[in-house]
Amino acid sequence: MHRDGAVLRCKSTRVGSIGFAYPFPVKTNVLRFSMRAPSDVSELAAAIRAGSVDPARIVAVLGKTEGNGLVNDFTRGYLIQSLKLLLGKHGEKPVYVFSGGTEGVLSPHYTVFSVEDSSEKGQKALAVGCSVTRDLRPEEIGTTTQVKLVSDAVAKAMADAKLSREEVSFVQVKAPGGTSNQSMAYSRVAGAFGVGMALGEIQDFSEKDFLKNLKLQSPRASVSSGIEIAMCEVMVLGNSAAWGGPLRIASRPMADAMDLDAVLGVLADLGLGRNARDLARVRAVMVKGEPDASGSVRGHRHTMLTDGDMNAQRHIRGALGGLVAGVFGDGRLFVSGGAEHQGPAGGGLIAAIAEAA
Amino acid sequence: MHRDGAVLRCKSTRVGSIGFAYPFPVKTNVLRFSMRAPSDVSELAAAIRAGSVDPARIVAVLGKTEGNGLVNDFTRGYLIQSLKLLLGKHGEKPVYVFSGGTEGVLSPHYTVFSVEDSSEKGQKALAVGCSVTRDLRPEEIGTTTQVKLVSDAVAKAMADAKLSREEVSFVQVKAPGGTSNQSMAYSRVAGAFGVGMALGEIQDFSEKDFLKNLKLQSPRASVSSGIEIAMCEVMVLGNSAAWGGPLRIASRPMADAMDLDAVLGVLADLGLGRNARDLARVRAVMVKGEPDASGSVRGHRHTMLTDGDMNAQRHIRGALGGLVAGVFGDGRLFVSGGAEHQGPAGGGLIAAIAEAA
Amino acid sequence: MHRDGAVLRCKSTRVGSIGFAYPFPVKTNVLRFSMRAPSDVSELAAAIRAGSVDPARIVAVLGKTEGNGLVNDFTRGYLIQSLKLLLGKHGEKPVYVFSGGTEGVLSPHYTVFSVEDSSEKGQKALAVGCSVTRDLRPEEIGTTTQVKLVSDAVAKAMADAKLSREEVSFVQVKAPGGTSNQSMAYSRVAGAFGVGMALGEIQDFSEKDFLKNLKLQSPRASVSSGIEIAMCEVMVLGNSAAWGGPLRIASRPMADAMDLDAVLGVLADLGLGRNARDLARVRAVMVKGEPDASGSVRGHRHTMLTDGDMNAQRHIRGALGGLVAGVFGDGRLFVSGGAEHQGPAGGGLIAAIAEAA
Amino acid sequence: MHRDGAVLRCKSTRVGSIGFAYPFPVKTNVLRFSMRAPSDVSELAAAIRAGSVDPARIVAVLGKTEGNGLVNDFTRGYLIQSLKLLLGKHGEKPVYVFSGGTEGVLSPHYTVFSVEDSSEKGQKALAVGCSVTRDLRPEEIGTTTQVKLVSDAVAKAMADAKLSREEVSFVQVKAPGGTSNQSMAYSRVAGAFGVGMALGEIQDFSEKDFLKNLKLQSPRASVSSGIEIAMCEVMVLGNSAAWGGPLRIASRPMADAMDLDAVLGVLADLGLGRNARDLARVRAVMVKGEPDASGSVRGHRHTMLTDGDMNAQRHIRGALGGLVAGVFGDGRLFVSGGAEHQGPAGGGLIAAIAEAA
Repeated sequence: MHRDGAVLRCKSTRVGSIGFAYPFPVKTNVLRFSMRAPSDVSELAAAIRAGSVDPARIVAVLGKTEGNGLVNDFTRGYLIQSLKLLLGKHGEKPVYVFSGGTEGVLSPHYTVFSVEDSSEKGQKALAVGCSVTRDLRPEEIGTTTQVKLVSDAVAKAMADAKLSREEVSFVQVKAPGGTSNQSMAYSRVAGAFGVGMALGEIQDFSEKDFLKNLKLQSPRASVSSGIEIAMCEVMVLGNSAAWGGPLRIASRPMADAMDLDAVLGVLADLGLGRNARDLARVRAVMVKGEPDASGSVRGHRHTMLTDGDMNAQRHIRGALGGLVAGVFGDGRLFVSGGAEHQGPAGGGLIAAIAEAA
Repeated sequence: MHRDGAVLRCKSTRVGSIGFAYPFPVKTNVLRFSMRAPSDVSELAAAIRAGSVDPARIVAVLGKTEGNGLVNDFTRGYLIQSLKLLLGKHGEKPVYVFSGGTEGVLSPHYTVFSVEDSSEKGQKALAVGCSVTRDLRPEEIGTTTQVKLVSDAVAKAMADAKLSREEVSFVQVKAPGGTSNQSMAYSRVAGAFGVGMALGEIQDFSEKDFLKNLKLQSPRASVSSGIEIAMCEVMVLGNSAAWGGPLRIASRPMADAMDLDAVLGVLADLGLGRNARDLARVRAVMVKGEPDASGSVRGHRHTMLTDGDMNAQRHIRGALGGLVAGVFGDGRLFVSGGAEHQGPAGGGLIAAIAEAA
Repeated sequence: MHRDGAVLRCKSTRVGSIGFAYPFPVKTNVLRFSMRAPSDVSELAAAIRAGSVDPARIVAVLGKTEGNGLVNDFTRGYLIQSLKLLLGKHGEKPVYVFSGGTEGVLSPHYTVFSVEDSSEKGQKALAVGCSVTRDLRPEEIGTTTQVKLVSDAVAKAMADAKLSREEVSFVQVKAPGGTSNQSMAYSRVAGAFGVGMALGEIQDFSEKDFLKNLKLQSPRASVSSGIEIAMCEVMVLGNSAAWGGPLRIASRPMADAMDLDAVLGVLADLGLGRNARDLARVRAVMVKGEPDASGSVRGHRHTMLTDGDMNAQRHIRGALGGLVAGVFGDGRLFVSGGAEHQGPAGGGLIAAIAEAA
Repeated sequence: MHRDGAVLRCKSTRVGSIGFAYPFPVKTNVLRFSMRAPSDVSELAAAIRAGSVDPARIVAVLGKTEGNGLVNDFTRGYLIQSLKLLLGKHGEKPVYVFSGGTEGVLSPHYTVFSVEDSSEKGQKALAVGCSVTRDLRPEEIGTTTQVKLVSDAVAKAMADAKLSREEVSFVQVKAPGGTSNQSMAYSRVAGAFGVGMALGEIQDFSEKDFLKNLKLQSPRASVSSGIEIAMCEVMVLGNSAAWGGPLRIASRPMADAMDLDAVLGVLADLGLGRNARDLARVRAVMVKGEPDASGSVRGHRHTMLTDGDMNAQRHIRGALGGLVAGVFGDGRLFVSGGAEHQGPAGGGLIAAIAEAA
């Protein structure tokens, strides 16, 4: 079920896989749309009218809205409501993952993932699998119960998408958060451990490791938490030989918030350079990061955690956005803060999807 | 004279050149210090005690303090008061240029420029010239009178430092601002036109061109305005054959806030790569930029100018800091917003000082 | 038509009067509902189910949402979308006036005005009239054209509600704003002049008086502007002998943001004291105010206009909310900033609706 | 010792009483000064020149500066540095208690308390006692050790000022805070318990009661914590028969942030009405309050604790300032947030000093 504030809208019938009645080979269609406001879904509407995307086959929407990205950011819910109004009966199916906060050069946008028929099949191509857990009870948030539920959902999505552990590049989890920043963090942690378990990156652990044993991490997990949902929603992306189409994905851990090499590396992994023609092939970029909890980056003090007027998440998103936009030449980046156990401590991860060169 | 709020401290005896009783060849010493708070001048104190810098020969201090960088940022004045307390009788001489706002990965620091004796002389080396105009009357701020005063002060500093127009890489101006954001902008504009005139980049103009004719610009001007001073203070940097020492400076215009090529270009101009050994040679980096007034960067909408909670200057500093820190691997960057007529519209400029490879 | 960002939803068929096919005497029903989020319309839904309000007879909804109340506040649009989803075919009729910003003790809520049949008739009772202008062209915003349109709409609403100039207590105008704070202010000004003209408070004027001749003002005008609409919407409230029911309204100008006497005076005008039983009779409180442009209140400097981190509107709403909530003992107050020409400069006005004692 | 950031300035020689070598009867002089900036001490300088205050006899300075009042507010330290520069050798003695944040109608100011000779003696008059604990070790902050140290310091200041428990009206404590909001809160808690112990309001307790057992509270304690000091500084105010002069103090607990009765009550306790002549007798007003942790005030939800852009302390100070300024007609109020165990939960306390009518 979805909720905004304390307003609950039940979706529990939706537990399980999303969108896989299609016979393989299929291909992933990825379209990126701009917004003039959180309620502006006109570009997707036009794409549907033009036949560029079939609303019945949309499995996920990932985006950045222009709120503050914190507890009182309602732009995410507003966009979800607007998308559902547009999609009608098809609106309940997709996984919606929105991160608020378009600091600096970041640009409000959303990326629509749909699964289309494909006759071709050759090289490994972008595969997407989505699944949904049951609703969590409030007391289960941030616990090993949540870890297990997420792990199972990731495994289910991988199986649906015919992706092996090694083939997975990026797992996005949207998890329920309580009403405090503390509970939101623990929910992200449990999500990251769930991904790590499913991918074989994290094995033995207990709740005592949460936010403590920072060596335990998944460099392919990206977890957002928010009060607007009660279940965990999972989107797994990777390259699979069972899929067709021209799209590929690559991802890398980021060592810290200045890790330009990781950004350039992902581009290189996709076989692309920084020229305009290559950059035009990019369809989506996802970045996770966090203000280094030590209070400094590469030995020099930062002030993100002590600023009483500007939240640390707004600081880090703006900095990461500036770095990554410099490489891709485009502000339509999914940059999200809160990277506990998601990539190296003080760093995070980056993933990008592009048309093969 | 200096003022904080409306509190005036007279410095009008200081009009003219700063620090050039030394016989050539001299060399520029550039030391960068971190701060734990705006009142923390302990690293400079230690350097003076260790003999690394002679307080009598300091001509300029340039730095970033951790306030909001807006009208009600008092961290700049606090640092100046603390530096003057430390420097005692030598504290009135230097040009102090502080920019508030260490968003994202930016780190509070200040860079001390002093002029030392040097026997060596060979390649062109970093030269610094500083000068101060008379106090401006409030009604002169943002007018052609200010333009002329700045132009004359730049010319004087260039003559002192034996720098030709072509040899100048970067001119920093600290100008008085009124108490509104509007008057602060016009003061920056007049400063930029003054630099452009002195460098031969801007010739025919009238006040009607201010904030309108954006083709008129100086890609080597960096102007800050603030209520804490009543005169204009000027620091000119360039490479001159009359100077000795190992330091060199390079600068480039930035086309927009995503101009990674300009950042990489400045590093290359200094003969350096992105490896750790080369980056350790860097002594200072200065960046000027602005939120694109068109409301978009490279065709995609940004939200810097419509955010009611986070000022546009805080947005742009965080983004530029993220971009430039990715290249230099260091958050101790002088990143300042408000780049009207300073480099291309929507962009700005970048300069860096390093020990020759 | 309504718009959010640049997204337009046409409503131009709605020009003219709202809701007056009912035979007099009628009465005004005023119900105040709390929200757990901008999308939470559950209390109104329950009231409709319980028969407490007839959705077909709702003429206006006035409320406070929990955004920042500035250009990038989308909570107003989100609530309007949610209310329209709830009200269905009846959702296009009402005038929606929402002000963002529940600083301090202010509480998110909305007040629903409906017009019901009433057999009784005796004392003057609360009357409500609503009307809508045609869509304004962008270049008409903040001009005498807007003044005339608002004046005509106020006159129409007064005629519908059988209210004389003297009987009007409070006129709320929702006006279109451009995308800058400057254009939003001029739109409020034009709205205030329109109300002043209709009520005979302002006669000879020109556009040169806007934001300049502050003696020209209407102490009964409350104007909000926002990018979400293209027309002006008007709600006139007063006490009329043609209306029945137990509700009464009173209003007073506020001399400044510390005018406790005005607040106590409005309560007294309604025949109520500050005891719990009397205060329970209060149904709605509306307050308009502004940060004194002189920079001080009663001779002492305030910092609302120079704070770079917290917008002046957030400052003034918090202060006024604290003052007025102290008297009414309730945070569900419609407190709105931007009181240009609405009541005394630096002050504003207060109105309250209560059941007669 | 004082510190700003991590910069320490030792003051440990100052442990113990402050300013009581004077033979009784003495009287308290209370002067309130405005600031144009945190560095503006010109009004005190003028008062010293005019002989209105003897710098050698200043025992405490209490004030509001215009920073954000949070961890990264350096306006407090800047004012202290500026006052010490003005007071010279007399600058080390006084207790300095500054609270940042002049939201809404609050006005930057500081109030100077000095002890002067007095021959007269009759009615109980305003008495002031100040004392200082030893420096606390970081691990002692927020513990029973701090409680005991504060309790002893309060007892010492009471004895110095010849004040019985019943005669004390208001105790201000400035306590060291760590670098997190959590540690700042616990330091305030320990300070409040220390005051409560000394005044006999709190007896049996353990650290488990901290932030939990909210019934344990002192309605006369006002505690601020900040990183700028390492010891606790205490100022006790009350009315004592041993003192002369025309000043009196009164204080009341506030039940919540809308408690207008408490504000009016304090004025009445001083024998004053809300007319201009009486209000001109007021010399200082001190208010402590907090955002109700339950999330609502008098049954209606507030949004202070969920706002990601505007800190809860800024919300509550603005609201309390609006309420109290409405009664006193003056924005020069010491309004401070963080009222854990200081007055009723969700409320706080108010004290005022005035010349006897």
